[in-house]
Amino acid sequence: MELGMIGLGRMGANMAQRLLRGGHRVVGFDPDADARAAIVSHGGEAAASLQELVGLLAAPRALWLMVPAGEITDRTIQSLLPLLDAGDAVIDGGNSNYHDTLRRAQQAAQQRVDYVDCGTSGGVWGLAEGYSLMIGGDAAAVERLRPVFETLAPAADRGWGRVGPSGAGHYAKMIHNGIEYGLMQAYAEGFSILRHKAEFGFDLHQLAEIWRHGSVVRSWLLDLTADALAKNPSMDGIAPHVADSGEGRWTVAEAIALDVPAPVITQALLERLRSRDDDSYADKLLAAMRNEFGGHAVKRS
Amino acid sequence: MELGMIGLGRMGANMAQRLLRGGHRVVGFDPDADARAAIVSHGGEAAASLQELVGLLAAPRALWLMVPAGEITDRTIQSLLPLLDAGDAVIDGGNSNYHDTLRRAQQAAQQRVDYVDCGTSGGVWGLAEGYSLMIGGDAAAVERLRPVFETLAPAADRGWGRVGPSGAGHYAKMIHNGIEYGLMQAYAEGFSILRHKAEFGFDLHQLAEIWRHGSVVRSWLLDLTADALAKNPSMDGIAPHVADSGEGRWTVAEAIALDVPAPVITQALLERLRSRDDDSYADKLLAAMRNEFGGHAVKRS
Amino acid sequence: MELGMIGLGRMGANMAQRLLRGGHRVVGFDPDADARAAIVSHGGEAAASLQELVGLLAAPRALWLMVPAGEITDRTIQSLLPLLDAGDAVIDGGNSNYHDTLRRAQQAAQQRVDYVDCGTSGGVWGLAEGYSLMIGGDAAAVERLRPVFETLAPAADRGWGRVGPSGAGHYAKMIHNGIEYGLMQAYAEGFSILRHKAEFGFDLHQLAEIWRHGSVVRSWLLDLTADALAKNPSMDGIAPHVADSGEGRWTVAEAIALDVPAPVITQALLERLRSRDDDSYADKLLAAMRNEFGGHAVKRS
Amino acid sequence: MELGMIGLGRMGANMAQRLLRGGHRVVGFDPDADARAAIVSHGGEAAASLQELVGLLAAPRALWLMVPAGEITDRTIQSLLPLLDAGDAVIDGGNSNYHDTLRRAQQAAQQRVDYVDCGTSGGVWGLAEGYSLMIGGDAAAVERLRPVFETLAPAADRGWGRVGPSGAGHYAKMIHNGIEYGLMQAYAEGFSILRHKAEFGFDLHQLAEIWRHGSVVRSWLLDLTADALAKNPSMDGIAPHVADSGEGRWTVAEAIALDVPAPVITQALLERLRSRDDDSYADKLLAAMRNEFGGHAVKRS
Repeated sequence: MELGMIGLGRMGANMAQRLLRGGHRVVGFDPDADARAAIVSHGGEAAASLQELVGLLAAPRALWLMVPAGEITDRTIQSLLPLLDAGDAVIDGGNSNYHDTLRRAQQAAQQRVDYVDCGTSGGVWGLAEGYSLMIGGDAAAVERLRPVFETLAPAADRGWGRVGPSGAGHYAKMIHNGIEYGLMQAYAEGFSILRHKAEFGFDLHQLAEIWRHGSVVRSWLLDLTADALAKNPSMDGIAPHVADSGEGRWTVAEAIALDVPAPVITQALLERLRSRDDDSYADKLLAAMRNEFGGHAVKRS
Repeated sequence: MELGMIGLGRMGANMAQRLLRGGHRVVGFDPDADARAAIVSHGGEAAASLQELVGLLAAPRALWLMVPAGEITDRTIQSLLPLLDAGDAVIDGGNSNYHDTLRRAQQAAQQRVDYVDCGTSGGVWGLAEGYSLMIGGDAAAVERLRPVFETLAPAADRGWGRVGPSGAGHYAKMIHNGIEYGLMQAYAEGFSILRHKAEFGFDLHQLAEIWRHGSVVRSWLLDLTADALAKNPSMDGIAPHVADSGEGRWTVAEAIALDVPAPVITQALLERLRSRDDDSYADKLLAAMRNEFGGHAVKRS
Repeated sequence: MELGMIGLGRMGANMAQRLLRGGHRVVGFDPDADARAAIVSHGGEAAASLQELVGLLAAPRALWLMVPAGEITDRTIQSLLPLLDAGDAVIDGGNSNYHDTLRRAQQAAQQRVDYVDCGTSGGVWGLAEGYSLMIGGDAAAVERLRPVFETLAPAADRGWGRVGPSGAGHYAKMIHNGIEYGLMQAYAEGFSILRHKAEFGFDLHQLAEIWRHGSVVRSWLLDLTADALAKNPSMDGIAPHVADSGEGRWTVAEAIALDVPAPVITQALLERLRSRDDDSYADKLLAAMRNEFGGHAVKRS
Repeated sequence: MELGMIGLGRMGANMAQRLLRGGHRVVGFDPDADARAAIVSHGGEAAASLQELVGLLAAPRALWLMVPAGEITDRTIQSLLPLLDAGDAVIDGGNSNYHDTLRRAQQAAQQRVDYVDCGTSGGVWGLAEGYSLMIGGDAAAVERLRPVFETLAPAADRGWGRVGPSGAGHYAKMIHNGIEYGLMQAYAEGFSILRHKAEFGFDLHQLAEIWRHGSVVRSWLLDLTADALAKNPSMDGIAPHVADSGEGRWTVAEAIALDVPAPVITQALLERLRSRDDDSYADKLLAAMRNEFGGHAVKRS
């Protein structure tokens, strides 16, 4: 089928390319000319404006948004909706907060535009291996887009599915990322303990490789960890600074709102916050308190 | 080669069977007659005593212990060592604490018996898929046992390795299990949040299946989780009671001893303790304290 | 001075009584006739409606809200504001979310009514011991209300203060309560460990009493804990069920929003959630997962 | 009564002084001549060796150990016991691990020397305010030492008590310190959140002072925190480096051994470990993992 891809950054460009390989017609839009040139070089077409993009597609259209969550997504939707016709579909493949998705879907519905939320996992590996797609929205709309999902997924019959009504796709992706935080932190802690056990002189890359085959902890994240450990076992030059892109925070908020304790996911998020504060006021105050009651020496900064 | 397998329980019986399939000669010992009959039915031999077992093997012998960690392992070694000759090898494939391993290896060394510790992961699936083996001990001894490891592992060239001197194998397995606690807890929390989000009516098995293909959180534990969710999505009849077999505790103790914070692994352990206390004194005291300062009503038990 | 007290529940009635003892004129409003009768019996006056209340006070008026945070507070303010004159002051002494406070203060300002937020700590003991008051709002308005604060506080010169602009009072109270969660949980855990150490046969009340004098952990919460342990050391008849009234959740959300890790306050909240779920889906799934990979028996419910 | 004080460091010197003020005869021993001179200047006596010390006291003697826990305590006891007579008493007032105490008490019992363990809280403030004393050991021995405890405690009838047999005193002190970790961390987190809420411009010292009077979170630790915040509200020159002296670790180990989840105390310990690692391997590995799967940029160190 044919599809407009809005946003040709790392993720959008790869997804467009996978769709092109799958025989779809893809027209891409991105404000950046190099990004537009790239999609053309892969056999796609490019539009220099949303208006041009919409004009190049036949109704009922499918427009896939792959832009940063938040304001940019909102702005894009505000520009896009007036250009669309009833029966067109917008798919938000980004990491939008599901509350925003519910609001946007309502707005689109007023124009009888289908709004489909598609949580997309797979990162930079999705081009080659396919993406895991958690889809929310109207069942008929999702069905109409089936050829796109079947191509983006690792295989036509797996790695994708409609998981519920509007918002459900982004909700599931949010929880997916929350789990990811916990998994990553568990591995990182384990390897850190091993590295500090100097007397055994462990080769962390070797251990990761052994665990990749037959062990209970084998996983794709472990495959990647093994790769990272092979390249740079001592993590030289890498700052102990871990970013977070929002979905972990939302997972924590959602868990608490539902009265569900999620201590490991929560703690994994807090560790990321902690990683970015190398001058903790709390720790300084603790040192000062110990000095107050016990006369314990304070380390000077 | 030939090998004596001491302990023909769930794990030992499967490992013996995998070795037999691989063309090795395996003589098994177990106090239980049915267990002995079983190995014979799979083409192995059985001994009714350690003495008989040792007599059936030619020096230099390889004796693989697959008995519960702790006292039983100690008692077995005390009975076994006097029967052995210099140059024989004992492999402890169980989940022994590495401190015990260091002590036992020293004792065996006094008789010039090689003591090899082999952390073994794979559970009930190891028979079919092979075991992930983390091996500690003398390099020459490990080399001599290579045919056994190559058969037990998923493939001759992967999923096993000598990771260091005596104790290193059990140490690595301990950390492996600590990581496992964290991974399991992260998945459990995520699925629990999804289950409590009633408005989306998620099908947890479907989600697990989607994630198994292409997603960042795909793993073998997720495969198993999908299987469990397929069989019993509401977890009917299962008590919220999570056992722990010791390695999580040791991991926590070891992390603290090394001054390495491992909050997620630690918290995963504490959640297991919590799961087994349905009448928490701490929680009752908290309710009483709230009543004291704020006059907040206490729920009666 | 004179003051209208809106809400004569446990907290409002006590505060009215403390103000009456301090020589102030207090007119109370509450929909409940018994609550109105009670304030009259303590030397105050009562109004049967907000309109009557406002009519009984001379401008510039001071109206103290002591009603449940959330909707009831909002509804009361919507009814009250139209009855007020420029220069009147409304004080919200409840546990309102500071975001609500900011919004309400803006609305009041449109009528030139001062809106003062007063975080109030002390619980049922405040009547006798005075309340700790964290006040946000316009400095001149707070100054005009000084006689009220000086009477409600433990002493005229301590235990109260203007801590910042609108919202700052409720913000400080929110954090106060977050800290309270952490303190309570720390004591509860400590006493729980002691209780489980059966071989020493500790008398927990005796220990709490010893610690009340001279120890580093002495506190008012420990005084109350000692009292609770004296009455009911085994916590008989008390369910292990700990409520939370919202401020802990807000503290956790605020900490994350500020990128400040607050693991102990956060964990204390999660323990309260956990106390109220005696059939944890996460724990059941963990038990099922252990069964899947290791064949470990599952406890039946 | 008369007492030998072994160890005239910060704690021992203060305790000796408090006993002297209370009218007791105190003979102090310390290898450091200045420490010996100090006790003489306060009206006590000094001995230059354990032998001399024992010779200056009449049987049945009371010897109070106030030396660092661990090896120094063991060495002192080994030197001391041969010098003592049946009926003498040794009191260990330090932060010994209760397992060590049980072993030492058994050894002393072989000579019919009473071994009393006294958990001592109060820090540098104990001289003026008295110490909180948790005492384990033989009831008759504790009774014989009553005059000493009555003087060291804040008052003769409170702040001290025999809490159980040998080991119980040090056990209670261990838990006391575990609670202390949790309390301190809760305050530190709360003040840290307040400090980061720049828009309200909180004066943390002012808030601590307000809370000291009438609030639910008032405590002695808060008094000290207020003092620290008054002196140095921005914690200038203080490194975010929090030491731990062992009792928190033991509390965590003990809680786990008893199957009692103590997440807040545990987390408070882990935060201290974290405070001392400003180049976390786990965090670097997390950053590398994010780069692997998502192509997320890594911050360079």
